[in-house]
Amino acid sequence: MARVHPELYFFGGGTAEGRATMRELLGGKGANLAEMASLKLPVPPGFTISTRVCTYYYEHKQTYPRGLEAAVGKAVARVEKLLGRRFGDPANPLLVSVRSGARVSMPGMMDTVLNLGLTDETVQGLEAASNNPRFAWDSYRRFCQMYGDVVLKLKPENKNDPDLFEEIIDRKKQARGVRNDVDLSVDDLRELVAEFRALIRSRAGQDLPQDPYEQLWQAIGAVFGSWQNDRAITYRRINHIPDDWGTAVTVQSMVFGNLGDDCATGVAFTRDPATGEKGIYGEYLPNAQGEDVVAGIRTPLQISLANGRKWAERNGVSEQERKAAHPTLEESFPQVYRELLRTANRLERHFKDMQDMEFTIERGRLFMLQTRTGKRTAEAAVRVAVDMSAERLIDRRTALMRVEPVQLEQLLHPRLDPNAAKEVLARGLPASPGAVAGEVVFSADEAVSVAGAGRKTILVRVETSPEDIHGMQVAEGILTARGGMTSHAAVVARGMGKCCVAGCGELNIDYTAGTLAVNGRVIHRGEYLTLDGSTGEVIAGRVPTVEAAMSPAFKKFMSWADAERKLGVRANADTPHDAAVAREFGAAGIGLCRTEHMFFAPERIRAVREMILAETAEQRARAIEKIVPMQRNDFVAILRAMAGLPVTIRLLDPPLHEFLPKEEHEIRELAADLGVSYEHLKQTCERLFEFNPMLGHRGSRLGISYPEVYMAQARAILEAAAELKKEGVKAVPEIMLPLIGDRREFDILAGEIRQVARQVLSDGARNLKFTIGTMIEVPRACILAGEIGASAEFFSFGTNDLTQMTYGLSRDDSVKFLDTYLKRGIYQRDPFQGLDASGVADLMRIAIERGRKANKSLKIGICGEHGGDPDSVKLCHRLGLDYVSCSPYRVPVARLAAAQAAIETGRKTREFKDV
Amino acid sequence: MARVHPELYFFGGGTAEGRATMRELLGGKGANLAEMASLKLPVPPGFTISTRVCTYYYEHKQTYPRGLEAAVGKAVARVEKLLGRRFGDPANPLLVSVRSGARVSMPGMMDTVLNLGLTDETVQGLEAASNNPRFAWDSYRRFCQMYGDVVLKLKPENKNDPDLFEEIIDRKKQARGVRNDVDLSVDDLRELVAEFRALIRSRAGQDLPQDPYEQLWQAIGAVFGSWQNDRAITYRRINHIPDDWGTAVTVQSMVFGNLGDDCATGVAFTRDPATGEKGIYGEYLPNAQGEDVVAGIRTPLQISLANGRKWAERNGVSEQERKAAHPTLEESFPQVYRELLRTANRLERHFKDMQDMEFTIERGRLFMLQTRTGKRTAEAAVRVAVDMSAERLIDRRTALMRVEPVQLEQLLHPRLDPNAAKEVLARGLPASPGAVAGEVVFSADEAVSVAGAGRKTILVRVETSPEDIHGMQVAEGILTARGGMTSHAAVVARGMGKCCVAGCGELNIDYTAGTLAVNGRVIHRGEYLTLDGSTGEVIAGRVPTVEAAMSPAFKKFMSWADAERKLGVRANADTPHDAAVAREFGAAGIGLCRTEHMFFAPERIRAVREMILAETAEQRARAIEKIVPMQRNDFVAILRAMAGLPVTIRLLDPPLHEFLPKEEHEIRELAADLGVSYEHLKQTCERLFEFNPMLGHRGSRLGISYPEVYMAQARAILEAAAELKKEGVKAVPEIMLPLIGDRREFDILAGEIRQVARQVLSDGARNLKFTIGTMIEVPRACILAGEIGASAEFFSFGTNDLTQMTYGLSRDDSVKFLDTYLKRGIYQRDPFQGLDASGVADLMRIAIERGRKANKSLKIGICGEHGGDPDSVKLCHRLGLDYVSCSPYRVPVARLAAAQAAIETGRKTREFKDV
Repeated sequence: MARVHPELYFFGGGTAEGRATMRELLGGKGANLAEMASLKLPVPPGFTISTRVCTYYYEHKQTYPRGLEAAVGKAVARVEKLLGRRFGDPANPLLVSVRSGARVSMPGMMDTVLNLGLTDETVQGLEAASNNPRFAWDSYRRFCQMYGDVVLKLKPENKNDPDLFEEIIDRKKQARGVRNDVDLSVDDLRELVAEFRALIRSRAGQDLPQDPYEQLWQAIGAVFGSWQNDRAITYRRINHIPDDWGTAVTVQSMVFGNLGDDCATGVAFTRDPATGEKGIYGEYLPNAQGEDVVAGIRTPLQISLANGRKWAERNGVSEQERKAAHPTLEESFPQVYRELLRTANRLERHFKDMQDMEFTIERGRLFMLQTRTGKRTAEAAVRVAVDMSAERLIDRRTALMRVEPVQLEQLLHPRLDPNAAKEVLARGLPASPGAVAGEVVFSADEAVSVAGAGRKTILVRVETSPEDIHGMQVAEGILTARGGMTSHAAVVARGMGKCCVAGCGELNIDYTAGTLAVNGRVIHRGEYLTLDGSTGEVIAGRVPTVEAAMSPAFKKFMSWADAERKLGVRANADTPHDAAVAREFGAAGIGLCRTEHMFFAPERIRAVREMILAETAEQRARAIEKIVPMQRNDFVAILRAMAGLPVTIRLLDPPLHEFLPKEEHEIRELAADLGVSYEHLKQTCERLFEFNPMLGHRGSRLGISYPEVYMAQARAILEAAAELKKEGVKAVPEIMLPLIGDRREFDILAGEIRQVARQVLSDGARNLKFTIGTMIEVPRACILAGEIGASAEFFSFGTNDLTQMTYGLSRDDSVKFLDTYLKRGIYQRDPFQGLDASGVADLMRIAIERGRKANKSLKIGICGEHGGDPDSVKLCHRLGLDYVSCSPYRVPVARLAAAQAAIETGRKTREFKDV
Repeated sequence: MARVHPELYFFGGGTAEGRATMRELLGGKGANLAEMASLKLPVPPGFTISTRVCTYYYEHKQTYPRGLEAAVGKAVARVEKLLGRRFGDPANPLLVSVRSGARVSMPGMMDTVLNLGLTDETVQGLEAASNNPRFAWDSYRRFCQMYGDVVLKLKPENKNDPDLFEEIIDRKKQARGVRNDVDLSVDDLRELVAEFRALIRSRAGQDLPQDPYEQLWQAIGAVFGSWQNDRAITYRRINHIPDDWGTAVTVQSMVFGNLGDDCATGVAFTRDPATGEKGIYGEYLPNAQGEDVVAGIRTPLQISLANGRKWAERNGVSEQERKAAHPTLEESFPQVYRELLRTANRLERHFKDMQDMEFTIERGRLFMLQTRTGKRTAEAAVRVAVDMSAERLIDRRTALMRVEPVQLEQLLHPRLDPNAAKEVLARGLPASPGAVAGEVVFSADEAVSVAGAGRKTILVRVETSPEDIHGMQVAEGILTARGGMTSHAAVVARGMGKCCVAGCGELNIDYTAGTLAVNGRVIHRGEYLTLDGSTGEVIAGRVPTVEAAMSPAFKKFMSWADAERKLGVRANADTPHDAAVAREFGAAGIGLCRTEHMFFAPERIRAVREMILAETAEQRARAIEKIVPMQRNDFVAILRAMAGLPVTIRLLDPPLHEFLPKEEHEIRELAADLGVSYEHLKQTCERLFEFNPMLGHRGSRLGISYPEVYMAQARAILEAAAELKKEGVKAVPEIMLPLIGDRREFDILAGEIRQVARQVLSDGARNLKFTIGTMIEVPRACILAGEIGASAEFFSFGTNDLTQMTYGLSRDDSVKFLDTYLKRGIYQRDPFQGLDASGVADLMRIAIERGRKANKSLKIGICGEHGGDPDSVKLCHRLGLDYVSCSPYRVPVARLAAAQAAIETGRKTREFKDV
C-alpha cells in the first residue's frame, strides 16, 4: 500500500513501512514494532509519527507539517479496517494508545496516554462488546485520570500533596468502606468518572473531549511536549543524549489483558538479565493491564516452570502451594507459552541480542507490544556475549561491543548485595570505588584504636590532611564533607585502593559531640555506616556485600579483548598490594607510581618535615638520608611485584606545604615534636604558603630548587633495581619527571639522574636498563613537545592537570559551578571525567606529532584518571597513544574499551586523521 | 703584511687586520681600535685575540690553539718595531695593557691588567727613559697590585675586610704621616713594591714573574678567565647575553698620561649624553692615568670652554677662578683640543652615531685608546636621533632604531632628580612606575586623614586588600612587603596609574608600633619615604623629582614612529584620568578597561557585598540596581574621554571572594554593618573560598552563574553609550568577556547581551554600534579559536593569565623560585615580563590562524602587560596582531617598539612565517 505521509509509518497486518534500523526516525519502540509486524508476529496494528515531526513541532510553534492530520485519519482508518472496529464507534469502538519513543530508551521520562477513544457514548459500546461493565468503566475511569494528568497536567498546588485523582479514589473507598480499587462497584466507577470530569472542568476550564480525534491530537501534542519536561531534560543531560534528537509518537490499537481470566499481561527476557543464563525469564499477571505489573500491587508470577520452581525454593513455598497460588504461564497458558517461546527465540535470533519483551494475552490470544534490547547486569552482559558467540549468533568482535566497559568494574570490587535493603542517607562524590561498612570514627587516632581492636571503621572527616594518613590506612573507607574528586581524601584513597565518598555536603559533622547529622538523621560515634564508593551513596547501618570473582566467561571475554586491542594497559599503583592487584587484572606494567604518598606514612612524615624545615642543603641531605632506605624498600617491593614489567615512578610532585600542618595547635605540637621554635615553623609554613598551589612550587620545580631531594629519590630507585638484579629479578624502572615545561628543565634533571646512576650502579648492575621521561601536563609541554621529546624517552600525559590548565579550571573549585555548565549545555560532560575531545585532545595531538617527529622511539601514554574512562580510552586509541594507565580496578575496563576502539576504528576512517 | 695567526688581529701604524663590523670576533673594543687604526687615527699599536679563542680556552681545559704563542711573539715584535721599544728591554721597555672586550659592552665586569712588562730590570729602564722615577716606581707599584689582585686573585679572607694591597698603602701613609698617595716619596714606592711582592710570595706561593712573556700569558689567561667570574655571569643573566659569546683579549702598547704636565687623560663624547646637545662634551685630568678619571679622587676638568663656563656657572665659580684652577682642555692644550675635535667629528661621521672616546695625551701627543657608541639618557637619545637625521647622518628609520623603546617611559613619568643624593634602603618589585615621596602611614584610614590634611603619604602595608582601596586612592604611592607583580597592590596601583613598589621582602612592618624596620634602619609613622616605581627602590627621606615634558624632538620622533608601524597601540585604562593621559600619549583607544576596580570604591563596595551575599536572583538584582547608575556614570566619563575611539570594556573578572574581608574582626564588622548574621557572612566567605582562585569561579563563569551581574554591566555600558550619542558624542564600546574557553559559553553570554541591547537601546540609539568579543587567556580558547572566533567580533590576548596557564605557573607564587630558573638558564627571561616566544606565542599563533580562518574580520589585540614590553610588542607584530594595549605611560614605548618591529621585519624575512 502507498505511504500516506512521509513522516507517518504504518505497521500491522503482517507488514510495516518502518524497519528496526530506523530508530532515529521511529524511536526504539516504533522501529521494533514495525520490525515485529514485518516478521508477521502478532502486533496490534498502529502507526508511528517520526521524530522529525517532533523537531518540526518545536520549531513551528507547536504545529504539525502539512497533510499530517489527514494522513493520521487515513492511518486510523487502515487500523479500523484491519481490526473491524471503528474509532469512536458507539457500538464496537477501537481504542488506541499514544506512546513516546526516543532513539534510545528513556524509561518513564516521557508521557503515555492509554484507552484513547473512550467517550460517554463509546464506553457503552465497550461495555456491550466486552460484556464486562467493570472493565469498560474502569478503562474509562483510567482514561479520565490519565488524560487529566498527562494531557491537561492537573497537579495539586503543593507538589507534596497527594495526587488529585487518587485523592478522589481514596475518598470513594473510604465512603464505601473498602480497601482495594477492585472492591469498588461498577456504579462506584461510574461515579468516579463523573467526579473526575467535574475536577477536570473546574481545574482545566474544559470538559473531557467527547470527540475521539480531539483526544488523539491532544494526546499526540502532550507526548511531543513531554520531550521538554524537566525529568526528560535532566535524564538527557545525565545520559549525554542530545536535545535535538526528539521523540517519535506511536499510536497503536489497544489490546486488553484485563478482560477476564483468559487474559494476562507480562514482561519477558530471552535470557536471565541478572546472570545471563539462557532461557526465557520473566513475569506475568493474569487478568491485568501492563501498568499493574509495573505498579507492584499484585505479586507477579513466573513465566517458565523452571524459574517458577526456583522462585518457590527461594521463597520457601511448597510445590503444591506454588502450583495453586503461583502458577507459571507455562502451566496456565501452555499454548500461549509455547508461542511466546517461539516468538522470543525468533526475536533473539532476528535481533541477535537478548530481548526484553512486553506482551498481552487477550482472550487467550498473544499480542506482542514491544521488544527491545534487554538491560542486564555486568555478569549477564559478559555471559550473554560469550554464549551468543559460542552459539554463533554473533562474532567475537560483536560480542566485545556488547558490554559497556564501565560495567566491568562492578565485577571486580566487592559490591553491596543487590538484594539487600538499604537506607540511603545522602550521596557524595564517588571518589574511590568499593563497598564497605564500619563503625563511624571522627579522627585518625580513633580509627587506629578501633581498628587495633579488630573492628572495622569508617573515618569521617570534614576534610582530610596528611595528619590523617595513619587513620586512612587502617579505616575501611573514608567519608568527607568537603573537597572534590582530587581532594586529599580522594587522591590518597584511590592511591590506597580504598573506598571513599568525598565532598558530601549534606553532612553536618560535630567533632566535639562525636556526631554526624545528615538530612535529619543523627549518627553517633560507633554506629555503623556503609559507603558505596561507586555510587557515592552513604547508607545507614551495615549492608551486606558480595565478593567479586572472575568467572571463566569473564576470562575468555577479556582474552578476546586483548587480542583486538592496540593500546597497552597499565595501572596506577603506589603500593606492592595495588601492583599485585593490577597484575592480576591484566596490567602490563605500572604507568604511574606516585612517590609522595609513601612520604605520608607516620614514621616517615617526620623525616619529610625535617627535610622541609632544613635551612641548608646539608641539613636537607641529612633528613633525606633517613628517607632513602625506606623509599628503596618501597621500590624493591613494587618492582618485585611487577618483575619483568615496566614501572613508571614519578618523582616528588606536591608542593612542600602539603606535608606541613595548617592549624595553629598542630603547628605548635609539631614544633615541640621536632624541637624547633614555633615561630620558625610558623614562618616556614607562611613562607611556603601559595596563592595557587596548583600552579606553584611543585613537580620538577622542586627538583630544580632542591636537587638533593630528586637525586635521593633517583638513588633509591636505582639501588632498588640493582638489588633486584643481583637476586636475578628483572626490574624495569622508568623515572618520570612531573610538570616539565621546558627542555632545559628536563635536561638538567635527567643529567643529574644519569650522574647518580653512574655513582650508584656498581659492576653487576652497570648495564641495568632504565629510562627517563616526563609527564606532559602543562600546555607549554605540549607545544614544546618537539624539544622535550628530543630529550625524553617517554611521555605520559597527566590529563588531570593538563585539563585544569588547558581550561584554566581548578578541579576542586569547579565543583561549585560545573553543574551550571552541564545544565546550560556548555560542557557535555565533566572534563575531569571524560577527556575533552576538542581542546585538551588537540593539544595532545600536537604534542604527539611534535614529540614523535623529534624522537621516533618515544613511548607515549596517559596516566591521568581519564585512562580508566572508556570514552577517553577510545580517544587515546584514536590519538595513537602507546598505552593508557588507570587504577587497578579499571584495568579490565580499559582493556575492553581499547578493544572496542580498535574494532570501531577498524570499521570507520580514523576520526583524528586530518584534525 | 701577512696574518700571523687566524685568531690574532693586529692594528697600528695606520693599518689594521680587523674592522668595526667584526665585533663578534674582536669584541667592541678591539673592533673599534682596529677601525680607528685603519682611519689612521693615533692609536697605540697592539693586537686582539678573538672570542673564538675564549671558546677554545674553555673547551680545551684552559689551553690555547696551536701556534697562538708564536703568533703573539710575532705580533709583539711588530709593535716593538713600530714604536722602537722592546718588550722586556732593560733600557727602553715597551709596556702593554691586556684588556677584555665582549661583543657588547659589559662595563667593569671583566678584568684588565696594565703596565705589563715591568720587572726589576725594566723599571730602571723606564725610570731612565721617562726621566721620571716617581712615574716609573708608581707604575711598577700599580702593576704589582693589579697583578696580585687580577691575575693571582689575592683577596682578604673576609670579604668585608679592606683590600690587602690598599691596607699596605694605608699603613705606609700612616707611617709617613701623609694623606694622599702622591705624597709618598719614590723610596716609599720602592718599599711598597717590595712589600707587595712579599705579600704575593706569602699568599700566592710564587713571586711576581720577572719574565714579561710569563706576565703576558698569565694576564691573557686571567682575562679569558674573568668571562666566567660571578659578576660577569650575573651581568649576562640580567642583560640576556648568551654565555657562549666569550670575550676577546686586546693587548696594546701603553701610553702614559701621567708623565708630567704635558700629559693628560680624558673621556669625551661627541654630544652631551644627558641632553643630546651637539658639541664635544667630556672631562680630562692633566698628568693622570685613565683610572684616576674614573676613581674620582681629583675633580676632572671640562674639555670645551663652553662647557667649562657652564660648569663654573652651575658651581658658582668665578671666571677668574675657573681659568686658574679649572682650565679646560681647549685652554690648556689648544692644539690637542683641535685635533681631538677633528677626531671626534671624524669618528661620529664614520660610525654615524654619538661616540664615547677615551684618550691620553703623552708629552703633548694625542692617543686614542677607545671609541664606542655613547650611552645616553632617553632625552639625549631622542634628540641625537632627530638631530642626526636632520644632519643627514642617518635616515629616519635608522633614527628610530637608535632609541631603546623602554627608555621613553623615563621621559613621561616625573622622575627622581638624577643629581640628587639618595639613601636606598631596600629594593622591591617595580610594580607601577613613578617617583613619589610622602609620609609613611600604615593604614588606609591614616592615609585618608593625613591626605585630608593636605599632606602627601606613602601607604605601607604587608599586603593590600579591597579594604585598603580608599587609602590607596589618596596615597602618593604604595609599598608592600608581600605579593608579586600581579598582587592586589600592584594591579590596583597600575590601574590607578599610581606609583607602587611591591613584594619588598626586606621590610619588617610592625603595625602596632607604627614602624618599618629595613636592613637595620627603623622608619617611624610620619617619617618621609621616597619610592621609585620604575626601579623598585625604597629611599629614605624626600628625594626631589623633576617633571616630564614632551619636547618638540620627542613629538617629531614619535610621528616618525607612527608613520612606520603597522600595529595599533591602545592603552589599558580604568578611569577617565588614565584615559585622558593615554590619549595624550597617543593611544588609539582603550584595549582594556577593567570594571572591577570601579567596584572597590568605598561607596560601592557595600552594594557589591550586598550583591554577593544575596540568596536569590531577586535580592541580587536589587543590590545590582544600586551599582548600575554608578557604573553607567563611569562609562559615560571614560567613553567621553575617548570620544571617537574604541573602548574595550571587560566585564567583571575576579572571583567574588576578593570583595569580601578575610580577617575575623573584619567579617564581624561587615556583618554588623550589612545587618546580616556573622555566621551567615562567615559561611558565605567559606563557601566562596577557593583552593586555586586563578583557576576558579571567575571571569565569564560569573556571568554564566549570575547572568544578572553581567547583564547589569552590559546595560550600564549601553545606556552610557546611548546617552552620549544623544549628546552627539561618538562612543565606540567593545564589550569583552573574560576567561572564555568554549564557544557555547560565549554564545550564551553574547546572546544575553544582545537581548539587553534590544531592551536598552531606544529609538535614537537603536543603530548604536557596539561589538562583543573575548579575552583569549586560557589555552583551550587558543585551541578552539576557530569555533570561538566564528562567534566573537574581536580577540584580546590576556597574556598574563595565558602565560600562567600555559606554563602552569602562578605569577605570585613563582617569585620564590623564578630566580633559580633564570640562574640555571632554564628561562632566559621572566615569562611574565617578556612574552614566551616559543610556547605562549605558538599557542597565540594557533589561535590567530584558526580565529582568522573562521572570521576574516576578526580584530585581534593583546591587553596583557606584555603589551608594553618592547620585545613582546615586536613579537606581536610578527604574529600579525592588529594592536597592542598597555599602560598609558607605556604607549609611546609600544609605538616605538612597533615601528622598530616593522623596520626590522622589513629588513629580514618574517620569523614566524613557517612556524
